[in-house]
Amino acid sequence: MSQVSSEPPRGITDHATTHPPQRANEFYHDAESLELSEFGELLVPSRKLGQGSAQEQPNYQDGNSIDWLREESAERERVRLLHSHRGLRGLLLPFWDASSMWFVIVLTGIGIGVTGAWLDVLVKWLADLREGRCDHGFFYNQPTCCSGFDAGEICTDWKTWGEFLSIRFILGQSLLHSFVYVTLAVLFAGISAILVKSYAPYAFHTGIPEIKAILGGYVLDRFLSPWTLLIKSLGLALAVASGLSLGKEGPLVHVACCMAFLLSKLFKQFRNNEAQKRRLLAAAAAAGVSVAFGSPLGGVLFGLEELDTFSNESDVMWRGFVTSVIAAMSLQYVDPFGTKKLVLFQVTSAAGDKWRAFELVPWTILAVAGGVLGSFLIKMNVMVAVYRRNSALNDWPVLEVVFASAITAAVSYLVVFSRVQTSELVANLFQECDINKADYHGLCNPTAMWENVFLLVVTALMKMALTAWTFGMMVPAGIFLPTIAIGASLGRAVGLLTQGLHRAYPTAWVFAACPADLTVRCVSPGFYAVIGASAMLAGVTRMTISLVVILFELTGALSHVLPIMISVVISKWVADAFGKDGIYGVWIAMRKYPCLPPIHYRDKGETAAHIMTPVERLVVLQDGCTLRDIDDLVKKHKYHGFPVLHGAELVGYVTRDKLMMAIEGLFSEDPMPSPERQCSFSDQPPGEEGDFEVLSGLLEAATMQLRKELPQELVVNMFQKLNLRYIMFTHEGKLTGMVNKTDIVSLLHMDFQHTAALSTPP
Amino acid sequence: MSQVSSEPPRGITDHATTHPPQRANEFYHDAESLELSEFGELLVPSRKLGQGSAQEQPNYQDGNSIDWLREESAERERVRLLHSHRGLRGLLLPFWDASSMWFVIVLTGIGIGVTGAWLDVLVKWLADLREGRCDHGFFYNQPTCCSGFDAGEICTDWKTWGEFLSIRFILGQSLLHSFVYVTLAVLFAGISAILVKSYAPYAFHTGIPEIKAILGGYVLDRFLSPWTLLIKSLGLALAVASGLSLGKEGPLVHVACCMAFLLSKLFKQFRNNEAQKRRLLAAAAAAGVSVAFGSPLGGVLFGLEELDTFSNESDVMWRGFVTSVIAAMSLQYVDPFGTKKLVLFQVTSAAGDKWRAFELVPWTILAVAGGVLGSFLIKMNVMVAVYRRNSALNDWPVLEVVFASAITAAVSYLVVFSRVQTSELVANLFQECDINKADYHGLCNPTAMWENVFLLVVTALMKMALTAWTFGMMVPAGIFLPTIAIGASLGRAVGLLTQGLHRAYPTAWVFAACPADLTVRCVSPGFYAVIGASAMLAGVTRMTISLVVILFELTGALSHVLPIMISVVISKWVADAFGKDGIYGVWIAMRKYPCLPPIHYRDKGETAAHIMTPVERLVVLQDGCTLRDIDDLVKKHKYHGFPVLHGAELVGYVTRDKLMMAIEGLFSEDPMPSPERQCSFSDQPPGEEGDFEVLSGLLEAATMQLRKELPQELVVNMFQKLNLRYIMFTHEGKLTGMVNKTDIVSLLHMDFQHTAALSTPP
Repeated sequence: MSQVSSEPPRGITDHATTHPPQRANEFYHDAESLELSEFGELLVPSRKLGQGSAQEQPNYQDGNSIDWLREESAERERVRLLHSHRGLRGLLLPFWDASSMWFVIVLTGIGIGVTGAWLDVLVKWLADLREGRCDHGFFYNQPTCCSGFDAGEICTDWKTWGEFLSIRFILGQSLLHSFVYVTLAVLFAGISAILVKSYAPYAFHTGIPEIKAILGGYVLDRFLSPWTLLIKSLGLALAVASGLSLGKEGPLVHVACCMAFLLSKLFKQFRNNEAQKRRLLAAAAAAGVSVAFGSPLGGVLFGLEELDTFSNESDVMWRGFVTSVIAAMSLQYVDPFGTKKLVLFQVTSAAGDKWRAFELVPWTILAVAGGVLGSFLIKMNVMVAVYRRNSALNDWPVLEVVFASAITAAVSYLVVFSRVQTSELVANLFQECDINKADYHGLCNPTAMWENVFLLVVTALMKMALTAWTFGMMVPAGIFLPTIAIGASLGRAVGLLTQGLHRAYPTAWVFAACPADLTVRCVSPGFYAVIGASAMLAGVTRMTISLVVILFELTGALSHVLPIMISVVISKWVADAFGKDGIYGVWIAMRKYPCLPPIHYRDKGETAAHIMTPVERLVVLQDGCTLRDIDDLVKKHKYHGFPVLHGAELVGYVTRDKLMMAIEGLFSEDPMPSPERQCSFSDQPPGEEGDFEVLSGLLEAATMQLRKELPQELVVNMFQKLNLRYIMFTHEGKLTGMVNKTDIVSLLHMDFQHTAALSTPP
Repeated sequence: MSQVSSEPPRGITDHATTHPPQRANEFYHDAESLELSEFGELLVPSRKLGQGSAQEQPNYQDGNSIDWLREESAERERVRLLHSHRGLRGLLLPFWDASSMWFVIVLTGIGIGVTGAWLDVLVKWLADLREGRCDHGFFYNQPTCCSGFDAGEICTDWKTWGEFLSIRFILGQSLLHSFVYVTLAVLFAGISAILVKSYAPYAFHTGIPEIKAILGGYVLDRFLSPWTLLIKSLGLALAVASGLSLGKEGPLVHVACCMAFLLSKLFKQFRNNEAQKRRLLAAAAAAGVSVAFGSPLGGVLFGLEELDTFSNESDVMWRGFVTSVIAAMSLQYVDPFGTKKLVLFQVTSAAGDKWRAFELVPWTILAVAGGVLGSFLIKMNVMVAVYRRNSALNDWPVLEVVFASAITAAVSYLVVFSRVQTSELVANLFQECDINKADYHGLCNPTAMWENVFLLVVTALMKMALTAWTFGMMVPAGIFLPTIAIGASLGRAVGLLTQGLHRAYPTAWVFAACPADLTVRCVSPGFYAVIGASAMLAGVTRMTISLVVILFELTGALSHVLPIMISVVISKWVADAFGKDGIYGVWIAMRKYPCLPPIHYRDKGETAAHIMTPVERLVVLQDGCTLRDIDDLVKKHKYHGFPVLHGAELVGYVTRDKLMMAIEGLFSEDPMPSPERQCSFSDQPPGEEGDFEVLSGLLEAATMQLRKELPQELVVNMFQKLNLRYIMFTHEGKLTGMVNKTDIVSLLHMDFQHTAALSTPP
């Protein structure tokens, strides 16, 4: 008989608490119906109740978590079969298997490299269109249009809209320019939002929280569909060109994963195995970062640190490395602007410069500011996201984008630094002043120091407010570039102030380390901008090593790694004091994805007993129950599975889908067994043989039993490292309780108050 | 009563099967006496039989494995205490704690950077001394001696020994030169061997296998002693200068670890916690690689890939990164030769060159050769090591070194390429031919192609034989540099042949991609040497990503990463076909260190039942036995611990040292309890309360129970990821068997025939 305990019963419900993103209404399922449909398709009649669990291909639905152990054992079985063939087949099949894997790896690398390059071209053309057009061809952007001219010559082929329409009056020109600038911004952003809303709701936002969840075992196939790939790429180009405060870095990672997912469908080894598919996605994600920043090593370390995917699997890391390098090479090969530069904003002069000890003071100030502002940006972003969900904005996403882009364009047009593309602004802020080069909007003019500092601070504050709002709207949006822009503006401002101080008091003891010759530069404001950017990035994303490597590949000078490292550490420390989660962690918590962050959780002396659901509150199956009991149980409870007890003793754990499959199989037999027939999950049934329907083959092989005295920290650690879904706690063979993955996820997000704020349908 | 089953009984014996290196006779303990002394010091009378296990500081002896769970929980407890203080102390103590950690990190980085730099200086001086001396000062090496001269001027201050002793006859000069060359080689090598043998036997060999074992939890404190540090540094300089076929890279990692170990003793947090100490050592090891190759990122990735230490702990990885960067910066700051070069052999011209598709053919040949020869080198090295152990050589280690160095010097003197220091040879082989630079021994002379190819192949073969012999003698010796030299010689030879082919048939269709102008270089033999070196390294060490990164930092050109990557992959594939273990893995297996390689083990359908020791062959403790039974048991069996059963049901696991402590405590009480008093390990003793001595507090909290149907692969995976010492297998609460770490180690080294060949005393 099935002994069902008093309320509230619990079980494994990791799919019941996780949901697709907030606005993807068309994909929402009622929680109950989702579960039914999910298992409904599993009910293939089968009498194979033995150990064959690995062979059956489970049909995961979006919102589920994959069963890593089952996937791994299926892969094990497949590889064993592959190597068991004799003769030529035994030689060729494993080779073919490896080749197809590398085929996908290489093609993904090339694909994302080329896509990244052509997205750049598209963005540049669209963005230039907001200012004018090329006389001899509409589809040329400004540099291409003027590429035939010599250095000294003035390019007459590129015409601003005022010139093109032959408007002579200054006022008329200004009005026309600002009008076109704002209108096209609104148009681009609006098209992007409509595309995303109508065709691929999953294409909005950065995508990195979802990718982290997917790599952790969450199933969200629509997030990686070809439609999402197309819309995210197109929408991203439009959104970036519209001048909204967003970047292309995170979305590029998403695009790379979509590509790998599409390619993986070509081969059965990935199509049929969720674990293998995820290993491929991890490599693709690394390649995405590699292309976004032109930093192949940064990509690998991003995969390691932020996505936490390569743990203990050096071949997976290796694949990520290969994909990264191939992607970076493809990008360099296409070389859309003919600059032969790989990294996004090459800092050219830093390598030759030295830094002095006194500079650590302004850098520390910048690092602290980066930590405080980064953490503030996260908090603002959360507030906006929660407000958006609970207000009328929720129903008018496209309108919100249109208004936001109009405001962004109008405000940006007023401040000279923010009028250009964010990437161009950052490149100029990172650039040291050079007499041989053009002065960017008077940034190098020493007499205009205070104006510049004021404008830079205004730019930073403005971008902060806009970014907090923009990141989460219905357009593809990355947070990296705006964060870099905010940090670089602040950094450059501090650099200008320090430089001004040095110019005003060149003989002060603080500046004793500077060269006596005042024409030799002592303070390099461009590098201050790099420091500011790294501090801000650390505050917002809480990355460390991958951040430093990406910025190291930027500056190229080993001696400059140390200041970057120091600023990253200080900023992270300061920001961590305001809240442990970075921007991605916060979004994961708000969405309540069943994704365990790789943080080192420290308990305060609690043991497993504090988080486990005690046996009294568990729905369990009793050994010796009847077929009808099982049928009732699986119909009544939608949990992922049930512990099987014999009296109080734990026999094992059985998943609901296996039980349903078995019951269905038995009931479709001829003659149908009596519903009152007793079942046994033990090898030796308590009564005589033959009286029982032996179901012991249904038990999970990898059930883990621990003592409830185990420190909580170790339990969390096991879930993190072993991809478990549940752990049983026993005492002298008797079940005392159970912990599942959702319990651990809740535990880790305990001190974040907006957990699950966006997880339910509006 | 204590139920002891029939023979052969087994338990946790991870210390009984592992031993210090072969020749460290003075440190050998008889296995039995080691165990007694080990636990003898633990017997502090204590009545605290409760949960306080974490507080007691275990006294690990060399040859033991640490208990990760106990160390982690002690650290957890310490951190909790640290944060529990109120007021200013509560703020300052954690800060002080973090500062002391960073203090050790930074000091280790600076220390190893400076040491690495000064070792270079010492080696250069000693090596130059074999050829001549400086006229104006004995302690100048050749470049320093001639540093005052202009480029065109001839340096007359540096005199060969012939010039110095004013010997005019060519024959006399030659004889004198070769005599001094060989004699000093023998002298240096002999001193090095005597130093190592007399003062620090652990300073011989590379040290990386031991570091891998230590990081995995093996205890070998003498391996990291200050004496070892001193002797290894000095001996290394002497050994390298003697011209023996060895490198300084591996030993530098050992030196870095010794330094960190020494510094860690300053602070209680490391001194008292073996797990924390190991985290520090991991960072130091990364710094060692960083200094050895001038590649900070390569160091971090080496730590990740080869030492497998940073898994899932991004703060440990971060520390490794900081140490690496600081070490590399210190090295660059000291800059012993004034070259401002960081990497060992900078490849200058590669960045500008392009490679053509047809070159993939010779590179593939090189990669296959690297794999075959690398694996052959490993096999030869194992044969020599086993032969050395079982022959008279075992008793005459210093004599062996003297003879080997004499033969090496004599043979090397004959072949022009091998006469110089190996590092100089490699630097020249990596260098492209340049009309403006001196031609290294006619390597760039196109008419001498066949002579060069012949000499290079001879050099490679000679170095292979010498390296296979040298690596394992009684001197500090790394395998990296000789491997690079072998690979570079072969690579350069293949490069010369390809170049010759191109020169002979410039119009052949294969060379269609080459520029028509024959004065423009099409084939770059220097880069072939890099490819050869990477293939050979991959074959010998089986590293992938860290190898590519180290070589990437060498060439600096992204486009050249792809060929390096391809050659590494092919070489590793080929070599893996001859045996899975790299050179370090082979030595770990021969020594039988309890160290789990991070390889992805794949079973052939076996379950845990195949490797577990069944319950019938286990020594177990019965719940309800008497104090005398326990006393007898711990005296009779030296296993690490015993499962506690109640009938056939598993109650828990108790370690031998805890049992002994408890018994000792009880027997020293007044009045002494009767030896016939029954003990209970359950919370509810079967009889009345008070009749039993309740020992349930002694049970391990983290005992893990699994089903024996679990696939073997998962069991191995759990041991690898969770640092476990044992797993229990139960069925419906009843113990069925146990697996411990040594079982897993044996399983992973199953197909290597010389396992444990060097683990026992001679």
